[in-house]
Amino acid sequence: MVPQHMELQKKLKVENFAEWFEQTTLHAMIYDYRFPVKGCGVWPGYGFKLRRNVLEVMRSLLDNSGHEECLFPLLIPRGLLEKEAEHVRSFQEEVFWVTMGGSSELGEKLALRPTSETAIMPMLKLWIRDYKDLPIKLYQVVSVFRYETKATHPMIRVREVTTFKEGHSAHATYEDAEKHVGEMVGLYKKFYEELCIPYIVSKRPNWDKFAGAICSIAFDTIMPDGRALQIGTVHHLGQNFSKPFDVKYLKPDGTHEYVWTTSYGISERVIAALIALHGDDRGLVIPPKVAPIQAVVIPIPYKGREGEVYEEAKKVYSELTSTGIRAIIDEDDEETPGSKFFKWELKGVPVRVEIGPRDIDRGVVTLVRRDTLERKSVARSELLTSFTALLDVLSNDMRSAAWKYLDERFYKVKSLDEAGELIKARRGIVEVPWCGRDECGSTLEDNTEARVLGSPLGAAAEKGKCISCDREASNSLRLAKTY
Amino acid sequence: MVPQHMELQKKLKVENFAEWFEQTTLHAMIYDYRFPVKGCGVWPGYGFKLRRNVLEVMRSLLDNSGHEECLFPLLIPRGLLEKEAEHVRSFQEEVFWVTMGGSSELGEKLALRPTSETAIMPMLKLWIRDYKDLPIKLYQVVSVFRYETKATHPMIRVREVTTFKEGHSAHATYEDAEKHVGEMVGLYKKFYEELCIPYIVSKRPNWDKFAGAICSIAFDTIMPDGRALQIGTVHHLGQNFSKPFDVKYLKPDGTHEYVWTTSYGISERVIAALIALHGDDRGLVIPPKVAPIQAVVIPIPYKGREGEVYEEAKKVYSELTSTGIRAIIDEDDEETPGSKFFKWELKGVPVRVEIGPRDIDRGVVTLVRRDTLERKSVARSELLTSFTALLDVLSNDMRSAAWKYLDERFYKVKSLDEAGELIKARRGIVEVPWCGRDECGSTLEDNTEARVLGSPLGAAAEKGKCISCDREASNSLRLAKTY
Repeated sequence: MVPQHMELQKKLKVENFAEWFEQTTLHAMIYDYRFPVKGCGVWPGYGFKLRRNVLEVMRSLLDNSGHEECLFPLLIPRGLLEKEAEHVRSFQEEVFWVTMGGSSELGEKLALRPTSETAIMPMLKLWIRDYKDLPIKLYQVVSVFRYETKATHPMIRVREVTTFKEGHSAHATYEDAEKHVGEMVGLYKKFYEELCIPYIVSKRPNWDKFAGAICSIAFDTIMPDGRALQIGTVHHLGQNFSKPFDVKYLKPDGTHEYVWTTSYGISERVIAALIALHGDDRGLVIPPKVAPIQAVVIPIPYKGREGEVYEEAKKVYSELTSTGIRAIIDEDDEETPGSKFFKWELKGVPVRVEIGPRDIDRGVVTLVRRDTLERKSVARSELLTSFTALLDVLSNDMRSAAWKYLDERFYKVKSLDEAGELIKARRGIVEVPWCGRDECGSTLEDNTEARVLGSPLGAAAEKGKCISCDREASNSLRLAKTY
Repeated sequence: MVPQHMELQKKLKVENFAEWFEQTTLHAMIYDYRFPVKGCGVWPGYGFKLRRNVLEVMRSLLDNSGHEECLFPLLIPRGLLEKEAEHVRSFQEEVFWVTMGGSSELGEKLALRPTSETAIMPMLKLWIRDYKDLPIKLYQVVSVFRYETKATHPMIRVREVTTFKEGHSAHATYEDAEKHVGEMVGLYKKFYEELCIPYIVSKRPNWDKFAGAICSIAFDTIMPDGRALQIGTVHHLGQNFSKPFDVKYLKPDGTHEYVWTTSYGISERVIAALIALHGDDRGLVIPPKVAPIQAVVIPIPYKGREGEVYEEAKKVYSELTSTGIRAIIDEDDEETPGSKFFKWELKGVPVRVEIGPRDIDRGVVTLVRRDTLERKSVARSELLTSFTALLDVLSNDMRSAAWKYLDERFYKVKSLDEAGELIKARRGIVEVPWCGRDECGSTLEDNTEARVLGSPLGAAAEKGKCISCDREASNSLRLAKTY
């Protein structure tokens, strides 16, 4: 389980992103996609730590906004899954079914949850009595399963989604649920900002909402191959689930009403985006906030002064860890410093701390940033201050660079030809004027080989003509090649 | 999701333990077993926090002993599961099979993991090259599935085991693996001590080892109904898995050898034991180390002095939380203090902190222990010291009481009649002299309606005659009714 020594091809990320992604995540021990079931991958130790740190950011946001973490069963009986008609219609071709226990046929088929609305509603029915029990906000982090028939991609389109954080809420009124949807959009924005991931928020089109939702909002980012990747969604489910599941509450006036529910999810696609957007031809570049290792201390011994260098390196390492910085020291004297640089660069450690005899003589320490590979000598006596400041600078620079990258790939165009060309060349996301009618939107998908991501949230009327029907535009649509 | 106001029947725990357990865990919001699939339960917020705290104790022990947390897929192809012949023979009647994706039959049936040896071995084959890669120690916390045909019990015998912590290791030699088994037995002991759970460690008998193991060691405790509950196991797997899965390593001498593996697991049965052993007719009693709430501050307002009491209660609450104590304050002025006592006793909060006008006048705070319900006034100025000391006393007393309870239910007897009577009356675990021959052990199971738990680890020869065949005893066997 040691990191593999592999050399990434120059420009591999740009020229063959899929290959770069699979190689990098494998050799940095983030995700091993060689498990012998299609669409199922393994998280080895280093990847697991990255995943845990990313989830901790999310947990902290959710816990601080009144959510409770729960755990619901994996197996959903067919009858339950089919209660909300539209929901099952959308999922039925993607559901894995357990049909046998031992050598016996089960009485009722059991679905591996594709998402948990239908598992949670029967429990909400038991838990909710009156208005004082509302709102309820809960979440769980679980595996969900989709029998994908399209090409699978590690972390991005898998059959076992191992890191599905699904939030669910129930409210007394439509307006409360709507307000909560807005708050969760805000919460997700904070989450992506912490991970230095840029995003575009769109209201999903009517013809492509979450199955059972009255309104879906999606976050997309743009991958290095120019395709959009959906990295989060928030849904207002209205009473579409509470009615078939008969989840009511007693109002102060003594009458009963069905609750209003919402749901919202992210998955390991967030981690895929983080890796894809920040990585380079040397490997990963992990934002300090979630890096399993924030600093690697590497002694650079010279003949005759080895003892001194190792000792100083140890002191620096202790100082860093004592303040809670996730640091390690790489003291292996059978490996050259160059080989160590290479290995920890592959693993995306944000800062390398080098200590050689010259540093000691000059009373300094050398810090090397992973993102820009810039070197900088800082006074030994100010190590902690300088180091902490550097982590902040690095985070901010990574965030800005990623936003710049996204902004450069977001186009507003007025003609179908222009839009079609940009999409064909996989340049990113294209926003076009739109009359607001579903049929114009969905025909665009046919004419451009793109998927519609949705419209801006609460945008003012767009000037210009609908690029599909030439009527006066009242809105915009975003189009892109997608995963 | 508020705690339910329920009154437990007096002596319910002693007279109908199963009913007490289901009611207590439900009403304290630890575990809701009303999910509409047999053998599958839900962890609501409060129970999830208890589960998380218990797992944190385990994670910390494992992380500090060189383990890496990982995550392996749920779905195991039939061919993989069947590679180790004895393993599959034991599990095949208990495996849930996924046979369909959407409306298509799958080419190869996929098992929901009953345990993960067969999922991990193919990855070890990819990860291990030479002796420098060994030992590998890893673990994961996942759901495993067993198609139980026996009666199910919440947390204790379920179809979805939601909290399976499985550890796996690979070593260069038999001896290294054996040494690791010993270390893991030691690690589990520490774990149970932290949770104030008493245990008996036995070497499982030859005819009832883990499927594929060359040696299995089990931890048992005794439940309030006198039945033994297996709460942990550690297995030396020899080369039984590495051979069929072809997991070899390169030795320093240039030859290859199969690795030696071990595995070890605990599940939510540990939480069930914790609840069962410490709870009483008022509900749960949770050991401070893992209590989601360690202290509940309850103001006891009197007419005219309400403001003062609430203010003081808030100060006490802030003081407690500021030092990292998991405290809450129950300020709801529509509920009587008595009703609050009742509610937080049900939830097992270790210490109640009461503040009334008399406490303020006397410069004291009243602390009430959940385990003994003893009240104690402590000087307000020494609150933190007194509170921390009380938590320690409480933990130690809970641990001692639980060990005393177990010791009183552990019998050493010399005759079959005596053993049979104790077991029939469900008095606990019975140890008897044994000649060491398998056939004597297994016939005992038929003659006493008990299961054999195993023999003492490294015990000296037991004096007396084998209670089955009357030959000279060379060892002992432990028998009990089990779950």
